[in-house]
Amino acid sequence: MPLGKRVLDKISQIVREEMNAIGGQEVQMTVLQPRELWEKTDRWDDKKVDNWFKTKLASGTELGVGLTHEEPIVDALKDFVSSYKDLPIYVYQIQSKFRNELRAKSGLLRGREFMMKDMYSLARTQEEHEELYEKAAEAYCRVYERLGIGEITYRTYADGGIFTKRFSDEFQTISDIGEDTIFVHEQRKIAVNKEIMTDENLGKLQIKREELVEKRGVEVGNIFPLETKYTDALDVYYTDEKGEKHSIIMGCYGIGVSRLVGMLAEHFADERGLVWPSSVAPFQVYLISIGRDEEAEKIYDDLTNRGVEVLYDDRADKKPGEKFADADLIGIPLRVVVSEKTGNKVEVKKRTEKDPELIEADTIFEYL
Amino acid sequence: MPLGKRVLDKISQIVREEMNAIGGQEVQMTVLQPRELWEKTDRWDDKKVDNWFKTKLASGTELGVGLTHEEPIVDALKDFVSSYKDLPIYVYQIQSKFRNELRAKSGLLRGREFMMKDMYSLARTQEEHEELYEKAAEAYCRVYERLGIGEITYRTYADGGIFTKRFSDEFQTISDIGEDTIFVHEQRKIAVNKEIMTDENLGKLQIKREELVEKRGVEVGNIFPLETKYTDALDVYYTDEKGEKHSIIMGCYGIGVSRLVGMLAEHFADERGLVWPSSVAPFQVYLISIGRDEEAEKIYDDLTNRGVEVLYDDRADKKPGEKFADADLIGIPLRVVVSEKTGNKVEVKKRTEKDPELIEADTIFEYL
Repeated sequence: MPLGKRVLDKISQIVREEMNAIGGQEVQMTVLQPRELWEKTDRWDDKKVDNWFKTKLASGTELGVGLTHEEPIVDALKDFVSSYKDLPIYVYQIQSKFRNELRAKSGLLRGREFMMKDMYSLARTQEEHEELYEKAAEAYCRVYERLGIGEITYRTYADGGIFTKRFSDEFQTISDIGEDTIFVHEQRKIAVNKEIMTDENLGKLQIKREELVEKRGVEVGNIFPLETKYTDALDVYYTDEKGEKHSIIMGCYGIGVSRLVGMLAEHFADERGLVWPSSVAPFQVYLISIGRDEEAEKIYDDLTNRGVEVLYDDRADKKPGEKFADADLIGIPLRVVVSEKTGNKVEVKKRTEKDPELIEADTIFEYL
Repeated sequence: MPLGKRVLDKISQIVREEMNAIGGQEVQMTVLQPRELWEKTDRWDDKKVDNWFKTKLASGTELGVGLTHEEPIVDALKDFVSSYKDLPIYVYQIQSKFRNELRAKSGLLRGREFMMKDMYSLARTQEEHEELYEKAAEAYCRVYERLGIGEITYRTYADGGIFTKRFSDEFQTISDIGEDTIFVHEQRKIAVNKEIMTDENLGKLQIKREELVEKRGVEVGNIFPLETKYTDALDVYYTDEKGEKHSIIMGCYGIGVSRLVGMLAEHFADERGLVWPSSVAPFQVYLISIGRDEEAEKIYDDLTNRGVEVLYDDRADKKPGEKFADADLIGIPLRVVVSEKTGNKVEVKKRTEKDPELIEADTIFEYL
């Protein structure tokens, strides 16, 4: 619905800006996927990947409905990457993904169709790969900071999957709504996922068990080393200055953009409704007039002209009390009320505070 | 790929702004569609709608892959529309659609997966419906003007489909690449699709055959009167002031956003490559330095800070001639060259012109 769509778009835009800032190039792959491509990496068979949605062309040819895009990205880059001069690169997309989960649950947190930013890095050497990987991890931290969850989000060691001995990195936000168990190292601002909590792993990570505190976390992103699994399988190599052929080392970097809508909604909500962080709120100001429509319209025009997104609740059939409740319910950061009572001033109230205050009408922009 | 994605996003944004300007509210429906919903309007059966992609949940339940969204939109609005006070409304989305065409062809012009803006209007009376319909038609004209094809795009009478005796309206752009035959009435700036060119229809439209000129057109949008077919079938009505129940009259309004990328590319291209209209070009300026990198970087920073999108071709291994050719090939509106030869000035050349001219470096912004 319209308000949620605005939040989704704002989160996408923050993610886009941070990926662009490290040199990410945005592309868009197709959702429909050819069988042959996925057979090359042995990921077509439902016994190997059990959450594919499959469909068929009118001619009978089987197609997959994109659940991730390592294969198509690597295949598409075949035409652009062959020399050492073409690397390193980051490519990413923000797009609907489809996973045939047996049990979809918790609304936007785990659905069968969701909006995801998936980025892929291609590097010439392990050292270069690690640079790209760390740069992307830092970009992720900036995303969470801008979303208002930087302080409570931990880079978390997790299982690396089947084709690497390295760990993968999850980003986990500490929250009562979390479904994962993680162990937080406050001092180093890192964490360890319960699934890899063995003495051996803690030894590798140089972490002592007693330094860790158990918490519940929501996964808000993950990054994986993919080694050369996909590039080798799809026959994409680069040649160096001397004309020698080498494997390309990949990383992949996911952020569930629609999942973040659900996560931020649930995490920040209070008994009166949603509380959107200002950076992703669908509007910055919820404007209410009590018998002072002319003044309210002036404020609306003034703020809108200055680039502030204002939701002016001009419903004639609703009482002020109902409007106050709706302003809280949909979680707009600042409520502004113009009424006879406020004289030349206006009443402003932050969603996160209980009491309003009076300010001069022409200082709302500065107040924001 | 990145440049095309930028064009796609710019077209989407122009469409979005014009739909918002007439009060359109943006939503996003799911791609995956439940069978039951489409059975209510008798559009599930492959014999009735022959270009569905179908898929299955892990449990075996059949799902459709969204080819259009009348049913889900009306179903979703059930929770928001019941009183005369809730109408009229426009809702729209910009989203990937999937159609199982027997013969996909012409790249982005007719693919099985494409990006579409689909808008739906809901009105209380036929008169109100017609107001919404005309207002949307005018918004479409503004979209085509901003895309640089306003002069050559004609509102064209076409077949209204199975559940209305009215005509539908196509928007057809006159072009050599067009696959439709239309008959243009220059004076009235309208056209008639060949498929409805009967004496009876011309009579209804008060058009004389001899006033028309045959042309080839590319369909760049269409709008349809849907009468009460979907709202009635899905049991969505409104009650008036007296509590009486009435049917809701719908219209639908499509623009193929990715199709427009292909259409604009093919229509404007010349022998040297693409020629993007400035409003949708991936970048406004293609910047080349010939031994004057410092000055070029200053220009880059200056223009970028002023909001101009500059593609700075700083490839060290390419000769100026190759860069000139690439600037033309990818169709950036203005090429700017800084070199020893130009002294304190820079050489600017519009993509649509043959010869460059010299201007002061600090006047590029004004020149744009």
